[in-house]
Amino acid sequence: MLYSKLLGKTLRQAPAETETTSHRLLLRAGMMSQLAAGVYSLLPLGWRSLQRIEQIVREEMDAAGGQELIMPVLHPRELWQESGRDTTMNGVLFRLEDRRERQMVLGPTHEEVITTLVRQNVRSYRDLPITAYQIQTKFRDEARPRAGLIRGREFLMKDAYSFHADEASLDATYEAMKTAYTQIFARCGLPSVTVEADSGAIGGKGSHEFMLLADSGEDEVLLCSHCGYAANAEKAGFVKPPGPSGELRALGEVHTPGKKTIAEVAGFLGIGADQTLKAIFYIADGELVFVTIRGDLEVNEVKLKNALKAAELRLANDQEVSRARLVAGAASAVGLDAFKHVADDSITLGSNFVAGANKPDYHLLNVNYPRDFRAAVPTDIALARPGHRCAACRHGVLAARRGIEVGHIFKLGTGYSASLGALFTDAEGQERPIIMGCYGIGVSRVLAAAVEQNHDEKGILWPRAIAPFQVHLVGLNMDNPEVAPQAWDLYRALQHAGIDALFDDRVESAGVKFNDADLLGAPLRVTVSPRTLARDGVELKGRQDKEAALVPLPEVVDRLRALLA
Amino acid sequence: MLYSKLLGKTLRQAPAETETTSHRLLLRAGMMSQLAAGVYSLLPLGWRSLQRIEQIVREEMDAAGGQELIMPVLHPRELWQESGRDTTMNGVLFRLEDRRERQMVLGPTHEEVITTLVRQNVRSYRDLPITAYQIQTKFRDEARPRAGLIRGREFLMKDAYSFHADEASLDATYEAMKTAYTQIFARCGLPSVTVEADSGAIGGKGSHEFMLLADSGEDEVLLCSHCGYAANAEKAGFVKPPGPSGELRALGEVHTPGKKTIAEVAGFLGIGADQTLKAIFYIADGELVFVTIRGDLEVNEVKLKNALKAAELRLANDQEVSRARLVAGAASAVGLDAFKHVADDSITLGSNFVAGANKPDYHLLNVNYPRDFRAAVPTDIALARPGHRCAACRHGVLAARRGIEVGHIFKLGTGYSASLGALFTDAEGQERPIIMGCYGIGVSRVLAAAVEQNHDEKGILWPRAIAPFQVHLVGLNMDNPEVAPQAWDLYRALQHAGIDALFDDRVESAGVKFNDADLLGAPLRVTVSPRTLARDGVELKGRQDKEAALVPLPEVVDRLRALLA
Repeated sequence: MLYSKLLGKTLRQAPAETETTSHRLLLRAGMMSQLAAGVYSLLPLGWRSLQRIEQIVREEMDAAGGQELIMPVLHPRELWQESGRDTTMNGVLFRLEDRRERQMVLGPTHEEVITTLVRQNVRSYRDLPITAYQIQTKFRDEARPRAGLIRGREFLMKDAYSFHADEASLDATYEAMKTAYTQIFARCGLPSVTVEADSGAIGGKGSHEFMLLADSGEDEVLLCSHCGYAANAEKAGFVKPPGPSGELRALGEVHTPGKKTIAEVAGFLGIGADQTLKAIFYIADGELVFVTIRGDLEVNEVKLKNALKAAELRLANDQEVSRARLVAGAASAVGLDAFKHVADDSITLGSNFVAGANKPDYHLLNVNYPRDFRAAVPTDIALARPGHRCAACRHGVLAARRGIEVGHIFKLGTGYSASLGALFTDAEGQERPIIMGCYGIGVSRVLAAAVEQNHDEKGILWPRAIAPFQVHLVGLNMDNPEVAPQAWDLYRALQHAGIDALFDDRVESAGVKFNDADLLGAPLRVTVSPRTLARDGVELKGRQDKEAALVPLPEVVDRLRALLA
Repeated sequence: MLYSKLLGKTLRQAPAETETTSHRLLLRAGMMSQLAAGVYSLLPLGWRSLQRIEQIVREEMDAAGGQELIMPVLHPRELWQESGRDTTMNGVLFRLEDRRERQMVLGPTHEEVITTLVRQNVRSYRDLPITAYQIQTKFRDEARPRAGLIRGREFLMKDAYSFHADEASLDATYEAMKTAYTQIFARCGLPSVTVEADSGAIGGKGSHEFMLLADSGEDEVLLCSHCGYAANAEKAGFVKPPGPSGELRALGEVHTPGKKTIAEVAGFLGIGADQTLKAIFYIADGELVFVTIRGDLEVNEVKLKNALKAAELRLANDQEVSRARLVAGAASAVGLDAFKHVADDSITLGSNFVAGANKPDYHLLNVNYPRDFRAAVPTDIALARPGHRCAACRHGVLAARRGIEVGHIFKLGTGYSASLGALFTDAEGQERPIIMGCYGIGVSRVLAAAVEQNHDEKGILWPRAIAPFQVHLVGLNMDNPEVAPQAWDLYRALQHAGIDALFDDRVESAGVKFNDADLLGAPLRVTVSPRTLARDGVELKGRQDKEAALVPLPEVVDRLRALLA
């Protein structure tokens, strides 16, 4: 490819309103171009990288037994009404009407369509399992499209769906997909972490996210330093440290004037936060819920929502709290049997806690469960934080890292197959809903995340497997009649050898050309100039090398071939 | 691939409302599935064929110097208003609004977007020429989606665009594209015809269509038996046969009671239609136009529209004719100078014509141009028909064939670049609009056209290059413990040898399996059965062979490899 004719030139200046490095660098490198908010063209260089990612995804999906197909962008809205997601995904659905006023939806994902296809094609357990996937453009009308390809409104996804007669078969495919995903990111040259994720209150039975670690990532991952266990904060389990414990003492009351927060009360009484109980009030599906957790821990709202099997959960507001006659800052479950009460199991790890007295400026001493208050069976609703001990090995300590979610796999169960009527006849002749899994990779997001992971102050550092070009060939003094023919000869020799090269054939200064080469980030740079030709050679430099090496002209192709092998 | 687990099973019955063979066969073969009118999923077998076509297109576009990129589906409507096509393509545009009430269009084609990209990236003639292409889903809200993939509302297209500083550069790329297109269809195994096409009254300066010949095609192609010249009926030139000629005689009048059509008048007077003049009335952009052509020829409305440089053209209705005081069935241009008059150049090929007398039941004898009436310079506005002599070689005779248009290339000129402001600075420092060409292939339509061209009463006959599988492996009596292991061994051996095989591993009758194999249309069928194993072999049969041949088991893989080489 000739740089002079390339559609997508570099920009000197970072365009306005680019929050993230990948957004800025991909625009500056001329790899993509914005057409509307969250809507981008991928220009030839960007598209080349994306196709390399796509091909790796395709090969690994095929190896994992996937059948590739392609499903439409235009969906009849009725199908989404049938599954219920016309309502639950209302916010992000692009809707339109055709010329006959039939309502359509632009597919944001394809569970509805694939489940319908499987319903039409599968009769018996003999037809199962099936794993099908596509690499197709998706549409989501995000409220805040941001960070370029990280969260767009039109983006490329690989979505796979599997269909099974029993859980064991789902488990096998799920494991095969987990392995394939790890392999995909490894082949791309992008270190990833497989993270336990929450699978929601309803339907799901297991879920993992795949994160590319990057400081700019919007997701927090908790990683065990010892065993490698990783989970997102919503899902992570941890070993709760025991609180101070001793013989149960008699309930008492203490005046705590003006002390409301755990820190204030503990400080006033000269005790640790782990010897207090904290009360928090939520509204779950319209009902007030009283939550108790040990004072040194925080509530994990996802775990709480799952424990309550609630569809919606939020903190109660001041009005709702006072209408319930609860005393914010001095509440406890003691004596308040009227409320739905959920407690974290940390209330059993310690004794003689300090808790609210349900009247202003007073707290209770020596509160003990279940002696002094009732709760639904205490369960884990606590948020893991860095420094907590890993629940997997009970030895290492969790550390926080930031990451970009690029994949998500999910045991769906029978939610979609039941609502859309995708049934099969089992070996005993019984008709049952098909068990499903789904597996997504944000293919265009991977491109952006790769840049977040791999760049320096000068530009992109492409991993070889997904670089748009392996070699950036720079001709200096291209108006010099001695240089130009040699540079062209070398370019043709590289093409002939099957080495992907971008040839900067412009008449421009060395400074401009080297800056562009660094910005574009090909792994290897080869420079032909009067100076190198005077020494019968070219300069070869890895993108991150400090110094270039002189390579004799006749050896260049072989040297590059060896480096790229 | 195992047939038992394949998503997309064969259907015994042709689904209702399938008008064409390809639509019926692709549905029956389980290669595609309808989701909405003109909207289809391509199931794994159909998608495999489509990907093979796509890959051939990609390779030939790259070889012709194309840069691949991908442009969005979602376009801001303003862009279409800027180019004027928000109005001119109004009928087929899918429109929608996003959550912020910004109006969007689903891209039916991408001239607007690519021209904008080029405007942003090209400054100088040094940046030109550029050829860019994409293989991307297009959306057109057709009034009558029909024939499956032939005319869908969501379909896959390869669209290329080229940008030039001068006409010579456009011509070179145009010729390269023409060659690439011929090569693409040849590599797919689909004989094509390159057809001169009309390029419209405004802007275009050359256009060719690429047709796959098929009896079911909706387009008529005129082919010269002698020189191979081909054109669609709208564009085709031909040698007009001279009419009877002699010394000019004096104008006379004849009573022709009740005779109105050319056939009636010529029959009544005992002369040939080629000795009459026919008058036809059109409304062009709101104005009445009087058209004269020799009685044995028909008007080509596309040529007429071009000659008039009209945006809209239609036949005048009875009211409009009588309001103009024209006598339908007895009109001629003689004495009617008030009207805009266009005449076909056939009026100069012959003399002493019979024409209308502009009063009912009377005709004029011995009408001669320009002696008796005026016209704008007579030009070619006649429709070529089968039997006419070829204008290219002036020797062969045109014959009509039916075809399916699968490609269209077009010298666009500067229409889009001027309206969207895509300018460049030429070598003299002058700013000028970039000269453009565009080049389309209906990739999903090629798939359907391939089936229209290649089928028999039993099913599809895939050309090898685009067959979803090369080998259809049939295991008979798969519940027989002697057969199954041998069939599986052979399947694995084929996979190991890199031979694409679909393995029918079901427990079904030979009749069902052979019918399915014929319907799916893989080039080669291999059958393993108790009968073949008793003779230590398998049966090998080409899809169109009458008889199968026995091949010894150890030789099968080598034999297939040789056949597929």
